[in-house]
Amino acid sequence: MILLKKPYLIYLGSATAPTDAKTGFGLKDWCAQSVLGEWSHADATVRLGLARLSPAEAAARGAGSIVIGVAPVGGVLPDAWLTDLEAAIESGLDVVSGLHTRLTSFPTLVAAANKRGVRLIDVRHVAPHSACATGAKRSGKRLLTVGTDCALGKKYTALALTQALKESGLQASFRATGQTGVMIAGEGIPMDTQVADFLAGAAESLTPANDPMHWDVIEGQGSLLHPAYAAVTLGLLHGSQPDALVLCHDPSRLCIEDYPDYPIPPLNEVIELYLSTGKLTNRAIRCVGVSINSSSLTDAAWTEYQMKLQSELGMPVFDPMRSHLDAAVAAIRAL
Amino acid sequence: MILLKKPYLIYLGSATAPTDAKTGFGLKDWCAQSVLGEWSHADATVRLGLARLSPAEAAARGAGSIVIGVAPVGGVLPDAWLTDLEAAIESGLDVVSGLHTRLTSFPTLVAAANKRGVRLIDVRHVAPHSACATGAKRSGKRLLTVGTDCALGKKYTALALTQALKESGLQASFRATGQTGVMIAGEGIPMDTQVADFLAGAAESLTPANDPMHWDVIEGQGSLLHPAYAAVTLGLLHGSQPDALVLCHDPSRLCIEDYPDYPIPPLNEVIELYLSTGKLTNRAIRCVGVSINSSSLTDAAWTEYQMKLQSELGMPVFDPMRSHLDAAVAAIRAL
Repeated sequence: MILLKKPYLIYLGSATAPTDAKTGFGLKDWCAQSVLGEWSHADATVRLGLARLSPAEAAARGAGSIVIGVAPVGGVLPDAWLTDLEAAIESGLDVVSGLHTRLTSFPTLVAAANKRGVRLIDVRHVAPHSACATGAKRSGKRLLTVGTDCALGKKYTALALTQALKESGLQASFRATGQTGVMIAGEGIPMDTQVADFLAGAAESLTPANDPMHWDVIEGQGSLLHPAYAAVTLGLLHGSQPDALVLCHDPSRLCIEDYPDYPIPPLNEVIELYLSTGKLTNRAIRCVGVSINSSSLTDAAWTEYQMKLQSELGMPVFDPMRSHLDAAVAAIRAL
Repeated sequence: MILLKKPYLIYLGSATAPTDAKTGFGLKDWCAQSVLGEWSHADATVRLGLARLSPAEAAARGAGSIVIGVAPVGGVLPDAWLTDLEAAIESGLDVVSGLHTRLTSFPTLVAAANKRGVRLIDVRHVAPHSACATGAKRSGKRLLTVGTDCALGKKYTALALTQALKESGLQASFRATGQTGVMIAGEGIPMDTQVADFLAGAAESLTPANDPMHWDVIEGQGSLLHPAYAAVTLGLLHGSQPDALVLCHDPSRLCIEDYPDYPIPPLNEVIELYLSTGKLTNRAIRCVGVSINSSSLTDAAWTEYQMKLQSELGMPVFDPMRSHLDAAVAAIRAL
């Protein structure tokens, strides 16, 4: 389990295109209360609209970590950024990165962090969990977002549902299973880097026993329909023992992305696949709604699609970017 | 992918109980043509019945590796064994181990191996595969053994079927996915140690495109019914894209071992689960037989069980320790 020190200072490097700073924007959107400000190199043009603070200023206001919120072009960390990160280390901040390149591969950063007693945390490269799943039932309620494919809104949906459940007066915790999710939550376990034998065990430890009325809302990964990643999805599904599923889908995607030989079947079949598979570890598993990434649809087309799907499936259909989540929250409360 | 140098000298350490030397007996049974002889420390009483050869003698006869065929009591490699292994290294043999303790954790072994230019191979700790599955169809035929649980004969069944297919005149290769299997085959990929994202990719690379009439017979792992290990099973199932499944079962097991809350459903349901899951990457997947570990049954009880199950399921039912595999081979040839 990764545990990060909040609040954060978000670092944007030399970003000149907002798309390079997706992680930074995600953190601003989803954990604003844990972000003190932003910092970047002199040549950056992207701004998040937060207070601009140097590492020393952020440290003085109580920051725990500087989080790299930008992906460098070509994946390589430029030397100029290293100088900024060293300044953050000297101010006493942990450095958090979700990049493929490891912070720990830079001897100057390692030396500076050791000297100052702060941590370099490579979210993609943490030591994996190493205990098998027990399969035992534990108290508390769990909801898992699952998908017809990767990268179509499972994290976003889980975050939006967590917020909506809290607003409706329930206890709820977002449980992060991917790099960005872990940064947002400040804790979690990236599932894709786990060792196969311990995948379900990692999911169990991420969602421990809790108050009987508490909801863990777990960020899903991959898809049972994906020829490369279904194993990750299954380990997460079995270990998290969800009482409730929310299926996430993007109607513009007819096939698994980059796998044109893998068409996405009708959603009722996909729901059935998840329920029949998930019931191994929770016989009471139910699907309580469908979350649609409707960015490809006009308002009129979305309304028509939503109504049609809702009547076909007999459950709430929503787009967390467009709709109220009241019906989904009601379905969850009804369990 | 692990590639071992055959032929082997099997090392039995200080074994005094045959059960401690399970790996040694397995190698003798399943790759006799690749085993030159056995060696052990002076205090060992277990013998495999092979030529007793010192490492130097084995090297003179062309041995490629010394393979540790015994599990030390308590899991710790005694110092006395290290002396024997160093002698093997000095004779130019690779050292192969499936123990949890790494050979590479002993500085004297590492120094000796580096000096002599031989390899220390910890089968449990090889660098994992790191490419995603493509999901693309490849030429050649594939059979995967699957199970109702772990440790009930999937490796044994795959080895016996490989042999029977070869005897019937077909081209066939055993594909190893566990530690002992890798030692027997001399190559393979231990699935349980793979990184989750690359599980299916590892299974693809283990069973590459081949002659259209060639059969890969793949050692199964875990079970889709297992609350901890189903993800491993699924990655192997999706990546190996089997044309044929053989379900392995032990009728004395009513629940998943050590998981009393996980009963094993009727076999027709288990077969349906594997077929419905496996069809994602191979729509033509079929179950061609059921392999029973019938060690708990008398001859009469076994015959009755076999007949009953065969007529219920409508496919060959056999115990590779007890039965001819002719019916299963015929079912495979008929595909």
